[in-house]
Amino acid sequence: MPTTQESGFGCPVPLGHDTILMAHGGGGRLMHRLISDVFLAAFGSGPAGGLHDGVVLDVAGARIAFTTDTYVVRPLFFPGGDIGTLAVYGTVNDLAMCGARPLYLSVGVVLEEGVPMDTVRRVAASIHDAAENARVQVVTGDTKVVERGHGDGVYINTAGIGLVAANVVVAPQRVRPGDAIILSGDLGRHGIAIMAVREGLAFETTITSDCAPLAEPVARLLDAGVELHCLRDLTRGGLASALVEIAAAAAVLLHIDERTIPIGDDVRGACEVLGLDPLHVANEGRFVAFVPAGQAEAALAIMRAQDLGANAAIIGKAHPSQEGIVTMTSVIGAERIVDMPSGEQLPRIC
Amino acid sequence: MPTTQESGFGCPVPLGHDTILMAHGGGGRLMHRLISDVFLAAFGSGPAGGLHDGVVLDVAGARIAFTTDTYVVRPLFFPGGDIGTLAVYGTVNDLAMCGARPLYLSVGVVLEEGVPMDTVRRVAASIHDAAENARVQVVTGDTKVVERGHGDGVYINTAGIGLVAANVVVAPQRVRPGDAIILSGDLGRHGIAIMAVREGLAFETTITSDCAPLAEPVARLLDAGVELHCLRDLTRGGLASALVEIAAAAAVLLHIDERTIPIGDDVRGACEVLGLDPLHVANEGRFVAFVPAGQAEAALAIMRAQDLGANAAIIGKAHPSQEGIVTMTSVIGAERIVDMPSGEQLPRIC
Repeated sequence: MPTTQESGFGCPVPLGHDTILMAHGGGGRLMHRLISDVFLAAFGSGPAGGLHDGVVLDVAGARIAFTTDTYVVRPLFFPGGDIGTLAVYGTVNDLAMCGARPLYLSVGVVLEEGVPMDTVRRVAASIHDAAENARVQVVTGDTKVVERGHGDGVYINTAGIGLVAANVVVAPQRVRPGDAIILSGDLGRHGIAIMAVREGLAFETTITSDCAPLAEPVARLLDAGVELHCLRDLTRGGLASALVEIAAAAAVLLHIDERTIPIGDDVRGACEVLGLDPLHVANEGRFVAFVPAGQAEAALAIMRAQDLGANAAIIGKAHPSQEGIVTMTSVIGAERIVDMPSGEQLPRIC
Repeated sequence: MPTTQESGFGCPVPLGHDTILMAHGGGGRLMHRLISDVFLAAFGSGPAGGLHDGVVLDVAGARIAFTTDTYVVRPLFFPGGDIGTLAVYGTVNDLAMCGARPLYLSVGVVLEEGVPMDTVRRVAASIHDAAENARVQVVTGDTKVVERGHGDGVYINTAGIGLVAANVVVAPQRVRPGDAIILSGDLGRHGIAIMAVREGLAFETTITSDCAPLAEPVARLLDAGVELHCLRDLTRGGLASALVEIAAAAAVLLHIDERTIPIGDDVRGACEVLGLDPLHVANEGRFVAFVPAGQAEAALAIMRAQDLGANAAIIGKAHPSQEGIVTMTSVIGAERIVDMPSGEQLPRIC
């Protein structure tokens, strides 16, 4: 019926929502549907095949990794970091997860009218310090100003360029049944740190963000000849979202054992008080690596030899399956399916 | 006196403002001071030597141009384009101004809670169409959502990668006394189009934005062997800001003749009504090229042979001077110094 079509009622409404909700930014199912149904539908899935954090391009013979992220974390400053630190490490980590050596960053800032100049200076200094620490160079940038009430102090976009060695191919599709899943450290510090500041929660000790650059641990694994099938840093949506995405992309079953997953007592306690699943809580300095079973112990030793990986653990493995699901043996020995959060636990975590 | 230092009163206040003003985003003197005193002071001026729109990097032997811009234009849709079109062409143009062939874009969007899904779809479609038109590929992206009242519908950051041929070096420092200044088309359409919509002004005809990709005109000049010393697209701050920046970077006097500068009657009329200097009004599809005098006529002919360059004109030339200033012979034959605007005529033009 043309009338129905013209009035728009005949169109499918694949997202089930006609306006953007906060949950569309949460790293869970709603965000994935927004990206798939709106952005990938418009742009095509591109050389990265969709929902990957970065892409590896052949540019005049050089294998260039390219990625971007916008940072809208609230508050701007939190225990263990600030928006500038996040903006550098987040993009550095996305490059590292492509198996790249991060080289160069662009920085685009959106400043809200009325933000103190001192805040801008502190953020700029953090970007500098983080870039130096991660051994990348900020090479180009842009500044925009929006009226009071159309921003939130400072938003930052960074894009990054890195170089991938000729023999390195790191992608979810490379995960094979039998691969071990190694987690680089304990879960949930970033999410809980932000939540504690935002909600005014006081725990016995101050929980600081795990925000850290991950290029060095990845480089050491590559230098040691570890065959890295897939890498993924754990951000919005936590370990659960990362594993669910990879299981779907690789069409494997990923099974993990909750008893092997490192979680600090302070974070575990906070999650219990708040009723949160630590597997859904955001991190900014943790990753999972998928390596052939025969190299798992060697890779673990390399990771544990670094401060950042002191708590690294083998938490599970990949099994044959067409389904692309994640299952977990819980601390009490029960089996359950691990799903990504549908929306989000806390908005504007990064 | 330690007390004074600790209280902060002893610090210099180089910007003369302790909070961000809208004018800090206007492309004029205040923005340049913000970038120099805060961002370049923190990051260093980098390989681009500061205020250039993009940078050319050597990555494993490939000459990669890299640039970024965030787009906060209001309204999102305007005659001749929308924020999606701008976000693609703006970054494509910054790459073209490095003498690069634009190849790949990243897209980072910040969506405000409550923005209609249909708006997001329309913007995504525009990004797709503009990318196709400019022959670049969107290869990676990111989506964030902020609460209602902390954004303005949609903000977009794009970063871009392009490839620069081995023999091409385009930079303000290459401008030499004697170089001709060629302007690619008539001035002010983008700024007046936005202003008309925003301020509800009705002119006899609808003035549409000049928003367009500039990679093709640049490629034709390079293919014809024109020695392009410097290229600059005219955005915030207009022709005046572009020339003042280049004169300062090259330490030359740039002299232009107002009688040779193409400005449409409709734009001229609007500027008169609004009391604006057309040299300060924003553009999104115009550039200036600095070429050796002996190649000026040939370059002009190449530009005029394309639709986008039908109104191209030689508007002046570079002269020896240590001062780095811009002067103009006006329509009545008077000489005056051309300066960039101190703040901005209209916020959020791009």
